[in-house]
Amino acid sequence: MPLPAELDRLRVVLVGTRNPLNLGAAARAMSNFGFLRLRVVNPYEVAFREARSAMGAADLLAGAEEFQSVAEAVADCTLVVGTTSIQHRDLQHPIRRLDESATLLLQHMASASVALLFGSEKFGLSNDELSHCHWLVNIPTRDEHVSMNLGQAVAVTLYELVRDHKTIEPPKLTELAAAADVERLTMALLETLTLSGYATPATVAATEEKLRRLVRRMNLNARDAEVWLGVLRQILWKLKLPAGH
Amino acid sequence: MPLPAELDRLRVVLVGTRNPLNLGAAARAMSNFGFLRLRVVNPYEVAFREARSAMGAADLLAGAEEFQSVAEAVADCTLVVGTTSIQHRDLQHPIRRLDESATLLLQHMASASVALLFGSEKFGLSNDELSHCHWLVNIPTRDEHVSMNLGQAVAVTLYELVRDHKTIEPPKLTELAAAADVERLTMALLETLTLSGYATPATVAATEEKLRRLVRRMNLNARDAEVWLGVLRQILWKLKLPAGH
Repeated sequence: MPLPAELDRLRVVLVGTRNPLNLGAAARAMSNFGFLRLRVVNPYEVAFREARSAMGAADLLAGAEEFQSVAEAVADCTLVVGTTSIQHRDLQHPIRRLDESATLLLQHMASASVALLFGSEKFGLSNDELSHCHWLVNIPTRDEHVSMNLGQAVAVTLYELVRDHKTIEPPKLTELAAAADVERLTMALLETLTLSGYATPATVAATEEKLRRLVRRMNLNARDAEVWLGVLRQILWKLKLPAGH
Repeated sequence: MPLPAELDRLRVVLVGTRNPLNLGAAARAMSNFGFLRLRVVNPYEVAFREARSAMGAADLLAGAEEFQSVAEAVADCTLVVGTTSIQHRDLQHPIRRLDESATLLLQHMASASVALLFGSEKFGLSNDELSHCHWLVNIPTRDEHVSMNLGQAVAVTLYELVRDHKTIEPPKLTELAAAADVERLTMALLETLTLSGYATPATVAATEEKLRRLVRRMNLNARDAEVWLGVLRQILWKLKLPAGH
């Protein structure tokens, strides 16, 4: 079983959950497998902390952190992974099978924080929410019935993380950029491209998602993220100079 | 993934289940992972077939076989395995961890029928019910919180039976950008930074090397290299506009 410190580096992020029973069930599975850090983004039901199905996990639910956006919920994490039931559609993200994902997640958790996102029961993660992810994980369900119950998907995913991973390889030495810095970079790039006419008011929303994915595919380390931000700020400064300068 | 004939040799037997929501959730997880043979022993709620939580598994639930005793429910099986959340108490049965159990179950299912028993939400399997089992399987939960939700326990157990067999389309192998394209990108970035004042004549040589390394650390695929080049060309076009435009 992974060390408690490693489990403590996983943030389970439930996005737009509609049914408080599912929030409770997710909290219970987290407690069963030793993951105690729950974050919720815009839960449908404000009174989610009273979910009765959190049997044995009331404290965990009471301590859940609430956020208004995915960006805020993952800001302090250096790896952001989404879950999806879709195997075949081109999602513009690498998709890894759950059993292969576990090793990668645990390696990262050995030294840094990871956010694991679960979308709403009805719609899963939206394209905008997915654009915050570095890659996606898929539970191998039957083609005829791919969509899992939320609480069960959380249980299966967390089980895989503790099932049989006694030896974890040491993490890579480069410190990855925090999601908040990567997002700051994305916004600076979007502003640059808006000022230079690459993005127009009609295309800016689609461009934003595209840029968010593009920037995340860079897998920036903390120092390079800073360099790129400096680069963009210089360009922005120049683009904003009044005419004639 | 195990062959359909093998999956078809597993009977999931829910004993004394109290909450129809849990019956529905168990049916859904069975359907997700390709196990379609449900048996119930004395469910608490007679109207269990209407369980609303069986989303996508209504047929499976409608086809469930009902029995008055464990003995009848397992009569045609040659291996009977119970599930338990208890790890330490002397149960007079061999207890195997779930990941070790899966291989044994699948071996048996290759040629004969297996019954997998789940007890009631409140009490688990009674000593009498356990006495029908050849051995027991345990999901490795945290000592402080061993008891799992029934639907989640079914989901995790069945997932383990199919986990490393199914083939999902591998992530597409992305074609990396050719060095010439990466260098073209580097030069465009250098020109942009020279025009915007980031690089001065005194620093341009050092900046060029720094940018070359920076761009290569992006590990760009061919398509992203093109996107980035388009981005930079747009910025360059804007930076070169005569004053007043």
